[in-house]
Amino acid sequence: MTGSTTSPFTADDYRARMERAAAAAADAGLAGLLVAPGPDMVWLTGYAPPAVTERLTLLVLAPGRTPVLVVPTLEAPDAAKAPGASAMSLRDWTDGKDPYAATAALLDVDGRFGISDNAWAMHLLGLQKALPGTSYASLTDALPMLRGVKDAAELRLLAAAGAAADRTFEEIREVRFGGRRESEVAADLAGLLRRHGHEQVDFTIVASGPNGADPHHEAGDRVIQRGDMVVLDFGGLKDGYGSDTSRTVHVGEPTDEERRVHDLVREAQEAGFRAVRPGVPCQDVDRAARAVIADAGYGEYFIHRTGHGIGVTTHEPPYMIEGERQPLVPGMCFSVEPGVYLPGRFGVRIEDIVTVTEDGGRRLNTTTRGMVIVE
Amino acid sequence: MTGSTTSPFTADDYRARMERAAAAAADAGLAGLLVAPGPDMVWLTGYAPPAVTERLTLLVLAPGRTPVLVVPTLEAPDAAKAPGASAMSLRDWTDGKDPYAATAALLDVDGRFGISDNAWAMHLLGLQKALPGTSYASLTDALPMLRGVKDAAELRLLAAAGAAADRTFEEIREVRFGGRRESEVAADLAGLLRRHGHEQVDFTIVASGPNGADPHHEAGDRVIQRGDMVVLDFGGLKDGYGSDTSRTVHVGEPTDEERRVHDLVREAQEAGFRAVRPGVPCQDVDRAARAVIADAGYGEYFIHRTGHGIGVTTHEPPYMIEGERQPLVPGMCFSVEPGVYLPGRFGVRIEDIVTVTEDGGRRLNTTTRGMVIVE
Repeated sequence: MTGSTTSPFTADDYRARMERAAAAAADAGLAGLLVAPGPDMVWLTGYAPPAVTERLTLLVLAPGRTPVLVVPTLEAPDAAKAPGASAMSLRDWTDGKDPYAATAALLDVDGRFGISDNAWAMHLLGLQKALPGTSYASLTDALPMLRGVKDAAELRLLAAAGAAADRTFEEIREVRFGGRRESEVAADLAGLLRRHGHEQVDFTIVASGPNGADPHHEAGDRVIQRGDMVVLDFGGLKDGYGSDTSRTVHVGEPTDEERRVHDLVREAQEAGFRAVRPGVPCQDVDRAARAVIADAGYGEYFIHRTGHGIGVTTHEPPYMIEGERQPLVPGMCFSVEPGVYLPGRFGVRIEDIVTVTEDGGRRLNTTTRGMVIVE
Repeated sequence: MTGSTTSPFTADDYRARMERAAAAAADAGLAGLLVAPGPDMVWLTGYAPPAVTERLTLLVLAPGRTPVLVVPTLEAPDAAKAPGASAMSLRDWTDGKDPYAATAALLDVDGRFGISDNAWAMHLLGLQKALPGTSYASLTDALPMLRGVKDAAELRLLAAAGAAADRTFEEIREVRFGGRRESEVAADLAGLLRRHGHEQVDFTIVASGPNGADPHHEAGDRVIQRGDMVVLDFGGLKDGYGSDTSRTVHVGEPTDEERRVHDLVREAQEAGFRAVRPGVPCQDVDRAARAVIADAGYGEYFIHRTGHGIGVTTHEPPYMIEGERQPLVPGMCFSVEPGVYLPGRFGVRIEDIVTVTEDGGRRLNTTTRGMVIVE
């Protein structure tokens, strides 16, 4: 399947994005952008190759020139049907020919280019060899905010994905947890996300009891017990745009300590959210959330950054992390998801997607952040 | 889900593979291999990260040293459970730290390294910057046959995947084609592959009538008609190893021309298969199949290479293509899949997976290559 079939955008939308990207490249002193299959290409052209293989597919964007999609001959008919196809020209290459020579002919011999983070190393090496005078920077280094600021149509799609995730939470809190395996609850989550319109489920974390202390535990065979804290973290793509939310529930009545840690994380999440407004550096969102947890003496148990961007993927810039000085801009969307992880015991994480408005932030997830007691 | 759960191999198997890979690197004059998440890492360690993100996960193999897996702290607990974990040491890095500096400390400052084809360009650029004296070659360029020669256990798994694909064909030929959409037959194929043990379906091509002339057409809304040729090409992973077979069926009685073209492709496939034996260059398999089609005047309509390797992926070296002089070695597995594509009219492709034996080739697909008439 290609990503082209569900695109809610027109060729003009893609043309405008490609023009903006080329202009941003020029502003950054780049001779152009080299865009690999994946989220960058979907966002710029609506095109997703049937499969990503060693055969080079690469979009070449250069300021003032028509975008060119270098594509294997076999896949040219698919590419010609992409929603953004009319805004670019196709240059196909045949098995046995050198795709790097074909691409090199489109590039300045001593230019510096931004290249998709996830472009294959093999292809970068092929270009470096074909044009030894060129240099490269990853798109995240060169233009980290290329896809970072969402337009109104994108914000509507992200809000709809968030609302679908919220409906998923409202329904999952009604199912039985105690006595069932994490993997069974995870399957329920996946089914609910799909029922509420997700075409792709990226993760359905159900981390119960001590498993909750591993922030990347997915869902396993452990049977959930009465008395367990259970971290739920789930999301995917709906109409091509991402959802990602976490809530931590408790099976039966929590202890005082469990309640205290949950309140602490909730307060940290609130502090992170309140730090969101235009002009504030990303790292300040992380600092605001982290300070609450550190001040309570749990700093060493908050072992990940506070958030990541979301758009055509569930995981992208901007990152809410110490050292990220990028100022927030209206239209940016990202998670605010502090957590506390007590090894061998339990974990708590609370996560909303937040978008930057003209004067602050707006949550795209609105289910209760209070501790929900489940059966 | 990680790929680790279904591994039929032991830590000793993975240790042996890593040792062989490091030795091959030394033989090729490399200071080591840098292995990214994906098929190389699955094959060498049994480990697949829960998700491939911008966070660096990289296996460093250097001759005479213990393999080291550089892994994000968050994912270290998962990595520690990988089937090959006991054969390597883990070096984790935390959000906000520089993973390239951590990796660079493991590398010779002026070494040449092989790096997985699909490693992210972002990570290669990070390493090139951290260690400007190093140089790199893609694994396919440096050690194209690293995973190319299968051992006895792998051959058994590939044969089992092929047998499952053959059972799928035997059942799909009994379903109704005429009057149904390509996408419906494709869904049947996917269901059958799963029922016969595939945990992953990579492609289910159903290309009817004129769609058959596009070798990479997947399956669309077209309603299959009586009188259509229909190219079926399907495969995926069963127990971690690939299947891939093509048959071209006809809805009702074919015309003389359709029969002639089908016979021609069948003859070309037979010629390609008969060319398989140890020591023969890969390109000779392509030449043998292509000569049959060219001699019949259809050379311009055979627009792709004759085959590709298969193993832990459905698409890998060795490639049966003009210019590939790699000699065949017993244990190699690859497709032999010539085709003829008549634009706007129809296409024919016939494909078996073939493994190289001590004195020739053995097909891992054994359904009839004669034209099957379907309803």
